[in-house]
Amino acid sequence: MAMRKIHLTAAHADADYDILIGTDLCDGAATFAAEKYRPHACTIVTDSNVAPLHADKVAAALQKVGIEPLVCVIPAGEEHKNIQTLQHIWDFLLQHRWERRMPIFALGGGVVGDMAGFAAATVLRGVPLIQMPTSLLAAVDASVGGKTGIDHAMGKNLLGTFHHASLVVADVNLISTLPRRELQSGLAECIKHAVIADANMFAWLERHLPQILHFDPASLAELIFQNVSVKANIVAQDPYEKSIRAHLNFGHTFGHALEKVVGYDKLPHGYAVALGMLAATRLSIGLGRCEPQLLPRLEHLIRAAGLPMTVEGYDPRAVLSAMYSDKKVASAKLRLILPVKLGQVTIASDVPEASVIDAIATVTTVGAVSA
Amino acid sequence: MAMRKIHLTAAHADADYDILIGTDLCDGAATFAAEKYRPHACTIVTDSNVAPLHADKVAAALQKVGIEPLVCVIPAGEEHKNIQTLQHIWDFLLQHRWERRMPIFALGGGVVGDMAGFAAATVLRGVPLIQMPTSLLAAVDASVGGKTGIDHAMGKNLLGTFHHASLVVADVNLISTLPRRELQSGLAECIKHAVIADANMFAWLERHLPQILHFDPASLAELIFQNVSVKANIVAQDPYEKSIRAHLNFGHTFGHALEKVVGYDKLPHGYAVALGMLAATRLSIGLGRCEPQLLPRLEHLIRAAGLPMTVEGYDPRAVLSAMYSDKKVASAKLRLILPVKLGQVTIASDVPEASVIDAIATVTTVGAVSA
Repeated sequence: MAMRKIHLTAAHADADYDILIGTDLCDGAATFAAEKYRPHACTIVTDSNVAPLHADKVAAALQKVGIEPLVCVIPAGEEHKNIQTLQHIWDFLLQHRWERRMPIFALGGGVVGDMAGFAAATVLRGVPLIQMPTSLLAAVDASVGGKTGIDHAMGKNLLGTFHHASLVVADVNLISTLPRRELQSGLAECIKHAVIADANMFAWLERHLPQILHFDPASLAELIFQNVSVKANIVAQDPYEKSIRAHLNFGHTFGHALEKVVGYDKLPHGYAVALGMLAATRLSIGLGRCEPQLLPRLEHLIRAAGLPMTVEGYDPRAVLSAMYSDKKVASAKLRLILPVKLGQVTIASDVPEASVIDAIATVTTVGAVSA
Repeated sequence: MAMRKIHLTAAHADADYDILIGTDLCDGAATFAAEKYRPHACTIVTDSNVAPLHADKVAAALQKVGIEPLVCVIPAGEEHKNIQTLQHIWDFLLQHRWERRMPIFALGGGVVGDMAGFAAATVLRGVPLIQMPTSLLAAVDASVGGKTGIDHAMGKNLLGTFHHASLVVADVNLISTLPRRELQSGLAECIKHAVIADANMFAWLERHLPQILHFDPASLAELIFQNVSVKANIVAQDPYEKSIRAHLNFGHTFGHALEKVVGYDKLPHGYAVALGMLAATRLSIGLGRCEPQLLPRLEHLIRAAGLPMTVEGYDPRAVLSAMYSDKKVASAKLRLILPVKLGQVTIASDVPEASVIDAIATVTTVGAVSA
């Protein structure tokens, strides 16, 4: 399979890097690090699930180009995306007398990327970061755009920075070992990208979902390429989320609140985003701001991807209250991303609470939707 | 006294802000926050020494423009510039449900500025920061240029980010309550700026030192203005310390190592920098790279400022070894900033260790220098 490349530049945010998509890209990543930084060592930050699958491959690629590979393994799972684990990475790097030209490889899903990125942003006031996502979610979303972070008792991702990678390598070989449930979770972000920016991609997704769900490498590579194109285009225009980057939060204000109320361990992020997109779309149609024909296509695609249509038995008022603690809330006003039609969304901060509660109820109440 | 203003722009580093210098500037800072961000609350991060002196003044100014002032007091002293104190600020902000448009005021010396800055950089991936330095050191150095940080068991400032203020307010009233020892410590950084970039300022310092040591407000304001001009000019050219910003480390590779060996509590930062400048200058002259007439003028100015000429009884080899753990070391090679003449320095990474040890010995050995 031919390697494909997307370049992301946002000069005023110190972002200027390639995203490579294809197969067998570990050697290329190691060569990039060797030629650009000439480090004597690199640290591969990875988690206890991914390390046994892929760490040796990346380490071997580094050794081949004369770089000593150090491996820092963190415990897998969102529940470890916290200050203690960040401190563990900090200690690991500083005890190895880290230097400014020594890159960190983030080998894993979104949690690893966010935490390794936060560590890379803050050790010695910033060292190079090479993202090697091993989940679809990380490949199409978390690894691109420079967001890093950890969770806090008050909510998810409340601590973090913007720190762009020097290189992102989406190697389809690494992603093909993903559990099916995580592939589906990543698909929710792909559907999101299609709704906010690319009606053609939505149609492509409708046609190619079966191949994607069978991990067909060429389809996965095409999927990642299309999605990274959408994301990189938005990030380049608005790296610090001051305007249109907020569109990427479509489904997320609802989604984050649902995750919080249902429990992060019970509701995967992508599942929550799928439910959030359904709620936001129904809300937008109810307010007369969205073409009604979007909803059946969205419902069909979400169902076909194996994503949930409801998460039943939760109080919509509790979800609403959790929405107010999301970090995108500006002065206690909800800002929601609402679809207008396929490929276009808008930002609304004038939505009546009663309508928001009704929209939440369509995904949390038994039998609320005849789907 | 007329207020003076310096503007700092470094577009690719997201830096674009004013530095105001004068007296009675608290109201101006509060008005700036109100007009630019319209927040309902601001947090004043300050320490247990500064809070009783100045926090009420800043809080009153905020209240006058309709902003609720919250005060987060951290324990004073470099020994608290650590992860625990950072976590305390993080918790304080998040428990008050911080929002992206709500500024943080850093009211204090370098430690407060570095820590409040680190918190502002990392809460919600960055919130506005207004620096209100209350020490000369912070006014002429730490508050300008976006460096933030905390210490780690492996060394000082090893964790941090670049996060520029939205406004820096150097109010001479706040600085006039400074202990004399801290004024002297700040003067070391002023002497450094003069040596690396401004021979005229060096001559001005020689003439005005008596007034400065008596806290004459007009002289302090002029001193801060000249020094911020030097610093802002360098930061604008090289915000991420990839090239000439390294000049600001003149005296610092030696200085950081001396602080570490002698003990941070025993040797104030400015004292260590003064000793470091003496060592670096003697080294440079010994290597034939510096005009010899710089040394007697530097020695005289350092002595006149009440800064030390030696710190006796330490092994130069221990200091050398500590220099290698400084974060500016690139691949185990010492990079030293050496003076060439007044107003000009150079970067050297080819200095023989024996010469470095000899230079250290001139400030650590009893009777080494006939001064």
